[in-house]
Amino acid sequence: MRFTAEPVARLIEEFHRLPGIGPKTAQRLTFYLLRAPVDQSRELAEAILDMKERVTFCSNCFHITEENPCAICTSPQRDRTQICVVEEPLDVMALERTSEYTGLYHVLHGAISPVEGIGPDELRISELLERVRRDGVQEVILATNPNLEGEATAMYLAKLLHPLGIKVTRLARGLPMGSDLEYADEITLARAIQGRREM
Amino acid sequence: MRFTAEPVARLIEEFHRLPGIGPKTAQRLTFYLLRAPVDQSRELAEAILDMKERVTFCSNCFHITEENPCAICTSPQRDRTQICVVEEPLDVMALERTSEYTGLYHVLHGAISPVEGIGPDELRISELLERVRRDGVQEVILATNPNLEGEATAMYLAKLLHPLGIKVTRLARGLPMGSDLEYADEITLARAIQGRREM
Repeated sequence: MRFTAEPVARLIEEFHRLPGIGPKTAQRLTFYLLRAPVDQSRELAEAILDMKERVTFCSNCFHITEENPCAICTSPQRDRTQICVVEEPLDVMALERTSEYTGLYHVLHGAISPVEGIGPDELRISELLERVRRDGVQEVILATNPNLEGEATAMYLAKLLHPLGIKVTRLARGLPMGSDLEYADEITLARAIQGRREM
Repeated sequence: MRFTAEPVARLIEEFHRLPGIGPKTAQRLTFYLLRAPVDQSRELAEAILDMKERVTFCSNCFHITEENPCAICTSPQRDRTQICVVEEPLDVMALERTSEYTGLYHVLHGAISPVEGIGPDELRISELLERVRRDGVQEVILATNPNLEGEATAMYLAKLLHPLGIKVTRLARGLPMGSDLEYADEITLARAIQGRREM
């Protein structure tokens, strides 16, 4: 006789396959759904299927998109001489919210991280170099995260891009808006002094 | 122009609705599925739908089951004079693995916890009392967890069950197998002394 319902065991297993979800969390999520209204399970399952069906990556910039190439890459209003390089699709969304940037993007899908075993080959770097060579790009803005992995990736890319004779820039580092000088860490403060501007 | 794919935002939102999944984790899971093979998403979605469709709670003992009443409640081999009271369906599975217990179960679906706002009314306590009164039960084994909430629940149940004139027992507390006396906490050791048995 079986006293463990097989569908329950299977869902625990499926949740457990997701990154950062241990066996205990997988059990907790499964039993939560078991007790929650059936609508929530249906909405979650549909959202998963719907996303995989409708969303792909742009074959040019590797941002998420429902049409390939994406709306940014095909827009006639965008400046095609600039490429802003980011780690994740979410970074594109964050930059778009500023309405400050009108060029194109290139999503690397990660950053170089020897600890996690992510080397340059795991990222969309060769595709970036091809775009720069082919599309008459004049400036590449390196907008990887200002942390260890992001800095390493930016330095690596800068070394590859410089020989191509284009302008390579990096997002400004400094004090974030609304912050308190007293609590700023030394590195941020040092960068803010180095990058000071006349006013 | 929309540069955020709506299906992505919706899945992030759905993951975020699950308990213990914050916005960052929801994003991480969503982008993981976006990059993972389509099979994994399909299997996860199917497992969710399948579980909700096939698994319910037994109307007698509230254990998870694909048939109602469950296989334990309907089994002619089980001792119907004993009910083992547990907090979660997983506890039933743990006890079944021991092959030591041959009676019936009753799943409370939680434990009394004033901190989390779970009172006796949120648990399947009235249903337990009804079963005890109706089904000629002779012994109720309180197998709630040996922690604060589980102990409180056991004490609360014992007070309700004693007037019904049945035997009320609690799982033995003591040193777990394979443990080291030197590292046992005082309460466990005290219980082990109190519960010592002749050999």
